[in-house]
Amino acid sequence: MHKVIFDTDPGVDDAMALLFLARHPEIQLLGVTTVFGNAAIEVTTRNALFLREAFGFDAPVAQGAGRCFDPNRGTGHFPHMIHGANGLGDIQLPEPAHRRPLDHDDAAGFIIDTVRANPGEVSIIAVGRMTNLALALRRDPGIAGLVKDVTLMGGAFFVPGNVTPAAEANIHGDPEAADLVLTAPWKVYVVGLDVTGQTQMSRPELAALAPKSQALTLLDALSQRYIDFYDALIPDAMLVHDTCACVHLVRPDLFTRTEGAMRVVCEGIATGQTILKPQGRPFPPGDWDGLPVQAAVTGVQSAAVMALVAETLAL
Amino acid sequence: MHKVIFDTDPGVDDAMALLFLARHPEIQLLGVTTVFGNAAIEVTTRNALFLREAFGFDAPVAQGAGRCFDPNRGTGHFPHMIHGANGLGDIQLPEPAHRRPLDHDDAAGFIIDTVRANPGEVSIIAVGRMTNLALALRRDPGIAGLVKDVTLMGGAFFVPGNVTPAAEANIHGDPEAADLVLTAPWKVYVVGLDVTGQTQMSRPELAALAPKSQALTLLDALSQRYIDFYDALIPDAMLVHDTCACVHLVRPDLFTRTEGAMRVVCEGIATGQTILKPQGRPFPPGDWDGLPVQAAVTGVQSAAVMALVAETLAL
Repeated sequence: MHKVIFDTDPGVDDAMALLFLARHPEIQLLGVTTVFGNAAIEVTTRNALFLREAFGFDAPVAQGAGRCFDPNRGTGHFPHMIHGANGLGDIQLPEPAHRRPLDHDDAAGFIIDTVRANPGEVSIIAVGRMTNLALALRRDPGIAGLVKDVTLMGGAFFVPGNVTPAAEANIHGDPEAADLVLTAPWKVYVVGLDVTGQTQMSRPELAALAPKSQALTLLDALSQRYIDFYDALIPDAMLVHDTCACVHLVRPDLFTRTEGAMRVVCEGIATGQTILKPQGRPFPPGDWDGLPVQAAVTGVQSAAVMALVAETLAL
Repeated sequence: MHKVIFDTDPGVDDAMALLFLARHPEIQLLGVTTVFGNAAIEVTTRNALFLREAFGFDAPVAQGAGRCFDPNRGTGHFPHMIHGANGLGDIQLPEPAHRRPLDHDDAAGFIIDTVRANPGEVSIIAVGRMTNLALALRRDPGIAGLVKDVTLMGGAFFVPGNVTPAAEANIHGDPEAADLVLTAPWKVYVVGLDVTGQTQMSRPELAALAPKSQALTLLDALSQRYIDFYDALIPDAMLVHDTCACVHLVRPDLFTRTEGAMRVVCEGIATGQTILKPQGRPFPPGDWDGLPVQAAVTGVQSAAVMALVAETLAL
C-alpha cells in the first residue's frame, strides 16, 4: 500500500490523476494539497474540493501556495486556453451548496505534519509547481530524510520544453522551488516531457470510458477543451502528463530512468530548464557537484501505461 | 566542388578534419583560419602551419582570435589533458626551419575578403570557438547573405554536454559569439554531440591506417593521448568530432536534421547550451521568435560516415 500526498493544481490532467489515485487499490490517499499553476490558488482549491465530492474520496484537502517561492518572481499568466478559465475545461460546475469544506489552509504545514506522523512511509506525488514542497523543506528540512520518495510531473531532459523551447510549465512556473526540491536529500523521480509526451489518451478512448461511471462521464466532459488545445500537437488526443507520474509510483517497471544530479536554471532564456548530470559521466568541477542523485524518467512502455490507466479509472 | 574556409583550433581531431579536407576530391580549401580553444592562439596557429607542411596542402593560413568575442569573458583553461600542452598530443614537433610563414594575421578580414571574392560560393566549416565568424559578422554583416552555408562542430541539443552537463566545449568557450553566429541570416548546420558522440575511430582502426602515408603515420601518433583521454567515456577509441562536421558538407544524406531557430545561453549554470525551437512547434511568444531557421544535425549513419572518413584519409 502506497501512502500518498498528492500535490496538485487541478487542472484537467490533474483531475484524471486524482481519479486514478482515488481508484487504484494500492494507493492510500493521505491528503490532497493544492497549489497555483493551471489556475489561481482559489480556483485550484475549489476544483480539488469539487473533484473530491464528484469522485467520492475522503482524503483531506489542504490549500497551498498562491505565489512563487521567490516573492520577486511573478505568478505569470494562467493557461486559460488549455485548462479553461475555471481550470476544468470551462464545464458548468455545480454550486457547492453542502460541499465539505477545506480541511487545512496551510499545505506546507500539512505535508510536514503528515510526513512526521508517518516516518519513512509517505510518497509525495507533485504535479504542479513545486512551491508547497519547497516551502515545507524550508520550514522543516528534516522531512527530506523522513519522506519515502517524491515523484514529480515536470521538466524536460532530452526533449524540448512546452512553455519555452527549454522549459516545461511546472518547473518554469517556479524554478527556484524546483531547484530546491531537486537538490534536497530525498529521492526524487522526475516524470517529465521525455515520457509524458509519449502517453496519450484519444478522444474516442475517453468517450468509451465515459459511460462506465459518473466520475468518468465528468472526466470526459471536462477534458474536451484540453483535447481541442492539443490538436496543434497531436490529433484528437490529450497528453496524460499527471497520471503518468502516478503510474510511475505503482508500476516503475513500465519505465526506464537516467540517474544523476539535477539543477534547474533560474535566469535567462533557459529559465525553468531541468539539467541532468548523468551519473558516472566525467565533467570538470561544476554546479552539479556533491548533489543528491535523482532519477529522470526517460523511457516508457506507453501502451502498457495507458492500458493500466484505462483499467484503473474504470474501477 | 565545395569551396571551403576551415576555421579551426588544432587540436587533435582538428588535425584529422584538416587531412580529410585536404584529401577529399570535392573540396577546394580556400583557406585555414585559426582560433584559440584547444590551445592558445599562437599554439593553434603554429599547429596549422605545421599540419599544412605535414599534410602537403597549399591553402593560406590566417591567424584569428586569441580571446572571446565579449572582452569581459575570460579565455578559460586550455584542455591540455585532452589535446596535450602543444595541442597535438604532445608529440615532438619538428623545428620550423624553413616552414612557409603565416599568410594573414586577421582571420575575420580574410573571411570577409574571401567571401566577397566568391559570392554565394563559400562554405565555412568552423570547428573551434565561433569567435572569428562573429568578428567577421560584426565587421561586415553583409557577408551573411554572401556565404553559401556554415557548418559548425559544436553544441548539444538532445544529449548532455561535455564541458558541463548543459554545454559543449566550442560553444561554452565563447557563447556570445555562437549566439551571434546561430542567429545571423545565413544557413547554419550545427553538427554537435548528438551525432559526433556516435562517430568513433578505434585505436586499431587508426593504427591500420597509419602505414598508408606519412600524414597518417603522424595522425596516428598525435592522436594517442586523445584516445587515452577518451578511455573514461569509450574504450580504446576517439570521438571524431570535427571530421564529422566535414563529412556533413560532402554527404548530408548520411545525416538527419531537426530544423528550428536556435539560441545560446550566455549566463548562469546553463552557459553555452544550444537550445532549439523545433520548427512548427507552437510556443508562447519568446526569445526564439523571428530568428532564422537553422539545422541541428541530430541523426547519423555512423558506420557509413566512418567508412568514408577512413577511405578519404587514405587517398
